[in-house]
Amino acid sequence: MTAVVWAGGMRFVGKGASGHEVSMDAAAPLGADSGARPVETLLCALGGCTGMDVVSILRKMKNEPRSFRIEIEDERATEYPKVLRKIRLTYIAAGAIPEENLRKAIDLSLAKYCPIANTLAGVAEIRYEARVDAS
Amino acid sequence: MTAVVWAGGMRFVGKGASGHEVSMDAAAPLGADSGARPVETLLCALGGCTGMDVVSILRKMKNEPRSFRIEIEDERATEYPKVLRKIRLTYIAAGAIPEENLRKAIDLSLAKYCPIANTLAGVAEIRYEARVDAS
Repeated sequence: MTAVVWAGGMRFVGKGASGHEVSMDAAAPLGADSGARPVETLLCALGGCTGMDVVSILRKMKNEPRSFRIEIEDERATEYPKVLRKIRLTYIAAGAIPEENLRKAIDLSLAKYCPIANTLAGVAEIRYEARVDAS
Repeated sequence: MTAVVWAGGMRFVGKGASGHEVSMDAAAPLGADSGARPVETLLCALGGCTGMDVVSILRKMKNEPRSFRIEIEDERATEYPKVLRKIRLTYIAAGAIPEENLRKAIDLSLAKYCPIANTLAGVAEIRYEARVDAS
């Protein structure tokens, strides 16, 4: 079970079975900006989920990156409810990795392994770009 | 934009426009358990999102709680892709709050204000319980 506890103002601290805290807050003046916004936290969760898959798969291909990051942009409905409509992921890996292998790893994550991407894909359009910096 | 950066092993650190870090990691032995799991992080994001709505609305009703927390349980598909199928939220407030007002605040959040709940409701069944501890 995951519990999210109100810590006054607009601050909430969540904790799941792992026991690690996830702090969230609203921007001032409504909140005290003591933690990430909930939607940022959701996008981080998506990036961590698909990122772990991609690193795991690249390792199995003997293509562990030197560095790796995912940039995420979202587009939400302009009227309430402001649901996520589009998510754009840019995967950027550095190292001697064939771009084809990076794409293969991403495709496996987005179509099969990442529960968060597969859940969100039921409501939002998810697109990605992949870049290898071989230098 | 939100960026999620690989920090070695299975550790990823995300950061959105607010600048606050969200750390994630896998359990040992795959990861080093240095942060929350991605799906826990997603459920925390959901709780923070709807929690901020509920506290804001209760304040407008002059019903600010003495304490407040949300417990979240999820059910995922057993086969890949293991998408979220069901989410059960238990909202627990302490204070002199009419239960009807707590329910009104939750209904407004889940049907209109919370972008995360409204996004996830497109794919998963979301149910809730509300409890007021008036003691």
